[in-house]
Amino acid sequence: MKNILIKVEYDGTGYKGWQIQNFKSAGNRPVQVATIQQSIESALSKILQKKISIIGSGRTDSGVHAKEQVVNFKVSSEIPLIKLRKSLNALLPKDIVIKQIKYADLDFHSRFSAKSKIYRYTILNQAYGSAFLRKYVFHYSLPLDIKLMRKEALRLKGKHDFRSFQASDKKPRSSIRTIQKISIKTKNDLIFIDIQADGFLYNMVRNIVGTLIEIGRGKLPKGSMRKLLDVKDRTYAGPTAPALGLCLIKVIY
Amino acid sequence: MKNILIKVEYDGTGYKGWQIQNFKSAGNRPVQVATIQQSIESALSKILQKKISIIGSGRTDSGVHAKEQVVNFKVSSEIPLIKLRKSLNALLPKDIVIKQIKYADLDFHSRFSAKSKIYRYTILNQAYGSAFLRKYVFHYSLPLDIKLMRKEALRLKGKHDFRSFQASDKKPRSSIRTIQKISIKTKNDLIFIDIQADGFLYNMVRNIVGTLIEIGRGKLPKGSMRKLLDVKDRTYAGPTAPALGLCLIKVIY
Repeated sequence: MKNILIKVEYDGTGYKGWQIQNFKSAGNRPVQVATIQQSIESALSKILQKKISIIGSGRTDSGVHAKEQVVNFKVSSEIPLIKLRKSLNALLPKDIVIKQIKYADLDFHSRFSAKSKIYRYTILNQAYGSAFLRKYVFHYSLPLDIKLMRKEALRLKGKHDFRSFQASDKKPRSSIRTIQKISIKTKNDLIFIDIQADGFLYNMVRNIVGTLIEIGRGKLPKGSMRKLLDVKDRTYAGPTAPALGLCLIKVIY
Repeated sequence: MKNILIKVEYDGTGYKGWQIQNFKSAGNRPVQVATIQQSIESALSKILQKKISIIGSGRTDSGVHAKEQVVNFKVSSEIPLIKLRKSLNALLPKDIVIKQIKYADLDFHSRFSAKSKIYRYTILNQAYGSAFLRKYVFHYSLPLDIKLMRKEALRLKGKHDFRSFQASDKKPRSSIRTIQKISIKTKNDLIFIDIQADGFLYNMVRNIVGTLIEIGRGKLPKGSMRKLLDVKDRTYAGPTAPALGLCLIKVIY
């Protein structure tokens, strides 16, 4: 038995997120839509000539990208890994790229072994959009008070109940998570919001970013982040920032 | 009379180049295909409610991008420029972005007034592609001798007859051009080939890049560039590098 680890990069624009889903069509028949997981499983199954199921470090939503998602799956015997990477990249659409394939310890599990993850949200803060980055950044043209956003963001560092930032229709057992690092950097008119945490609630990064934008443009007052951690109520936070600006940067084991 | 200058950025992936063209369909009827010029003229004409014809600094080919193409057109009276930029960006598809609109001297002509242009060709030189850059770089996975490529590229600097690098089916009056600057820079696995010249022959940059790649992988010997300038024969040079890696960076006036 061999445990195989894959690092994969994807442009999520054309996909209904990571996980395989079955939607009901108008006629109530199940319709499979394109997801990253399904695309990789289908290519792997074709190359290895048997049904392969992969485990991802976590789901990414519809339209969300990944610079380095980590995946694992088990096979009964050794396979030529470099050849497998080449065959996979030849078979997969060009918006999904296999960067690395290697053997992992048998007990490695891409989801349960993960210690933390880093997500980056990118805002393009200028009057006009970008022809080249248009699918990877959220274009927001109003002026933002970056210093205040940075100060407020730091309030979120540490172990907190992030219920105010979780999607209102999702109720996990616990909404307590630990943000190990949070930073806001700028480069020309780009704003990068990086968050490293031991886990993320559904829509957590996008809700934090939506709230930071409201703070940065003065629609939510200074001190809002602390209050939001206290009230534990999604309705007081800002809107959910669009998916296209979000990217899974790294999974740390 | 007012002369209006526009700086525009575009992702050329979905367009048949800059210039308006009429193709004949199977039934021999003219069919207009999407070009950048046509898209901008159509948006301008709609907003200003009369037929506007624009002049670009030069044509870019099918699939070639521009970080800053310069355009001008004349109107009979002043128009609110910031509002015009906003309206244009709202109307244009998101892969064409108007960065700046301003008044120019009446004798300014985006093509004839241009002193030089800078083009950048980008190669991604690693084993696997890039999900995010796939439309903007030429993915070339074989190892390249960058130092040799750089040395050979420098041979092209100055005033030369570039006939060896012009598309074989195009014969301009003169194939003499002056390359003012040529450089090859790297950043991780990206190779940037920047060329500044007083003018470019049809496919000149892509033919120079195709030749540099042949040199870099050892298929053409050291000293090839000097020989190519001497023989003035396209058939001795390397193949034409793909359009997607090419971008018009700047027009200098």
